[in-house]
Amino acid sequence: MRITADEAMSVARFLLERAGVPDEHARLQAEVLVEAELRGHASHGLQRLPRLLARIRHGLVNVSATGRQAWRRSAYLYVDGEAGLGPVVAMAAIRVLMDRVAETGIAVAGIFNSNHLGMLAPYVERVAESGYIGMALSSSEALVHPHSGAEAMLGTNPIAIAVPARPGEPFVLDLATSVISMGKVHDYALRGEPLEEGWALDAEGRPTTDAEAAKAGSLAPFGGAKGYGLGLAFELLVASIAGSAFAPDVRGTLDDCHPANKGDVFIVIDPVRQSLADVIAAYLDRVRNARVRDGAGRILVPGDRARSRRRESLANGINVAPVLWSRLTGPEATKLFSPKEEGHPS
Amino acid sequence: MRITADEAMSVARFLLERAGVPDEHARLQAEVLVEAELRGHASHGLQRLPRLLARIRHGLVNVSATGRQAWRRSAYLYVDGEAGLGPVVAMAAIRVLMDRVAETGIAVAGIFNSNHLGMLAPYVERVAESGYIGMALSSSEALVHPHSGAEAMLGTNPIAIAVPARPGEPFVLDLATSVISMGKVHDYALRGEPLEEGWALDAEGRPTTDAEAAKAGSLAPFGGAKGYGLGLAFELLVASIAGSAFAPDVRGTLDDCHPANKGDVFIVIDPVRQSLADVIAAYLDRVRNARVRDGAGRILVPGDRARSRRRESLANGINVAPVLWSRLTGPEATKLFSPKEEGHPS
Repeated sequence: MRITADEAMSVARFLLERAGVPDEHARLQAEVLVEAELRGHASHGLQRLPRLLARIRHGLVNVSATGRQAWRRSAYLYVDGEAGLGPVVAMAAIRVLMDRVAETGIAVAGIFNSNHLGMLAPYVERVAESGYIGMALSSSEALVHPHSGAEAMLGTNPIAIAVPARPGEPFVLDLATSVISMGKVHDYALRGEPLEEGWALDAEGRPTTDAEAAKAGSLAPFGGAKGYGLGLAFELLVASIAGSAFAPDVRGTLDDCHPANKGDVFIVIDPVRQSLADVIAAYLDRVRNARVRDGAGRILVPGDRARSRRRESLANGINVAPVLWSRLTGPEATKLFSPKEEGHPS
Repeated sequence: MRITADEAMSVARFLLERAGVPDEHARLQAEVLVEAELRGHASHGLQRLPRLLARIRHGLVNVSATGRQAWRRSAYLYVDGEAGLGPVVAMAAIRVLMDRVAETGIAVAGIFNSNHLGMLAPYVERVAESGYIGMALSSSEALVHPHSGAEAMLGTNPIAIAVPARPGEPFVLDLATSVISMGKVHDYALRGEPLEEGWALDAEGRPTTDAEAAKAGSLAPFGGAKGYGLGLAFELLVASIAGSAFAPDVRGTLDDCHPANKGDVFIVIDPVRQSLADVIAAYLDRVRNARVRDGAGRILVPGDRARSRRRESLANGINVAPVLWSRLTGPEATKLFSPKEEGHPS
C-alpha cells in the first residue's frame, strides 16, 4: 500500500511522542526513518519503529538525552550518548563539529552508548549541504565473515561520504561493506526467493543460497579480500575512536533487551577552497557523460539514484507493507506502549 | 635473479645520488622502492627507478625540496610539494602531523605538486609505529572506468589505513580501488597470459581478457558499483583536500615529460586510549582464529601477508628481473644520466 511521506512522518512522530520522546527528538528520529523509506530502503525505515518502541518501553533508551560531549583534543570530540536516540545524539555532535572546523579544518567525533543511527546518508548529506565534506562510520553486531572465514566476526560496517557539488545535488555515498544487507536477506526469505551464490554462508559455514539458512549464518564481505580488508579497517577505526565494542561483543541494534554498545564516528572537513562545489560538480558531470558500455544503462554518481527515488516517492507515495502499517496504526498499536512484559530480560 | 635488500638499497641510493639527490632524500626514496620489492610488489619497486631518473634528468623533480607547508587551519596542513620527491615531501608532512595531533587529536595534510609516492603502506605503517592511526589516499592518471562506463575516468585511487596493534605487527591495509593494478596487466602482457574476465575493457570499451588490449583500455573498479563509489569518493576527497587535478587531467606519474599534478592526502588520528594497541591485537587474533571455510587456507589480517613476504625476502633475497638489474647496474646504466634528449617535450 502507498502512503505519503507526510502520513509516514505523522505516524512515526505520534508513536514516538506517545512513547515519551520530546517533540524535537521525535521529529529527528522520524525523519531518519522516513528518509530511508523515501529512498527505497525499507529495511532502515518504518519497520525499525516497533523494535525502537520496545527498546524505549524496556528502559534501554534515554529519550531526552543529547549526549555528553567532551573535547578530548581541540578537533576530537568524545561523546557518551547516554543511551540517547541515535539521530539525536549524532546530529548534536555533527553541529558541534561543523562549528569547530572553521578553526581546525578537520574534526572528528567518536560516539558510544547511543542507539541505532539508521541510514547514514542523511547525516553526511546535512554536512555537505553546509559546504563541508562529511564522513560517517558505524559499527554493528557481527554479521560478516572474514575472507576465508566461516563465521561472522565483523559488523556490516557501513561508510558514508558526502561532498558538496551543485546545490541540492551533493555526492552522497552510503554503502555497507557486506555484499548484501541482512535486511535484504530477510526480504528474500519472506518472498521465498533464493540468494545469489557467494552472498552468504549458513550457520555451519557452508555456502548457501537459502535465505532462511543465511539468516542464521553470515554474509560475505563485498569485493572479496579487498572489501573484507576495508570492513575490518572500519571496525578498528570505530572501536578506536569511539571506544566502543567489537562486532562479536556488540548488542543493542538488533534486539530489544540489551544496551547499545556499538560506536559511531563522524568526520567533518572544511577544504577551504573557493568554488570547490563547482569544480566537483563539473567533474561529476564528466563522469556521468563518459562513454557507456554496450547494453549498460546510464552512468550514475552516488546520490543520483537516491534523489530520483526520493522524487518518485514524494510524488507517488511510499510503498509500505500493509501488515506493518496496521501494526503501527491499527488497534493493535496500543501494544507498542504496553507496560514492560513480565519476565523480560531487560 | 635474487639480490639482497642491502644490494637493492645500495644501487638505488647510488643512482639517485649520482642524479644529484641529497643523501637523506635518496635514502627515503630508495627505502620506499625497496620496501615494495620486499613485499613482492615489483610494480612499485626498482622498475620505477629509470622513469624517476628520467624525470630528474628532464628537470621535473626538485631533488632538494621538502615541500612548503602552511597550516590553513590548526589541524589542516596544506603542502605545495615544490616538485619534490614524493616520499620526501610526504614524510616531512607526516612528521608535522604527528607533532600536531597531541594538540588536535586529528590532523590532515593535502599535498599537491609532489612526485609519485610509490606504495602507500610504508607511510601509514610509520604512523602506526608511533602509536597513531594513519590513513593515506593518493590520486593518479585515469585508468579505471565508472560502473557501466566504457572509458577510464578515475584513478586507481588507493587507500591505506594502519592501526597500532602488537609491537611490530600493526594492522596495515593498502589497496587500490581497481580490481587489478595496471602494473599487473603489464606483467600478464609480458608473460602472454590472459586476464580474468571482468577485469578490463579494451580501448573501444569492450570486455577483454587480452592483456595487451587492456593496456590501451581501462580497468574495472573492484567490487562492482560499491568499489566504483568508493574510488570516486576518494577521487573527490583528494582533489578537494589537496587542490589537485582530477584523473582525466592528471599527468606525471606514468610519464617522464609532465609535472606531477596528482594529489596526496594523509590523516593522522590520536585515539587517546590507553592500551588501545592491546585491545586491537586481541580482536585481530579472534579474527585470525575464527572458524575457517572448508578448503580455504588461514584467515589473514591486512599486514600479515606483507610481513611474511618481507621476512622471506630478507632471508632469501628479492627476485629482480635480470633485464632490469642490468639496466640499473650494467654498462648501459650511464644512459640513466645522459644529458637531456634533444627535442624532448619537457
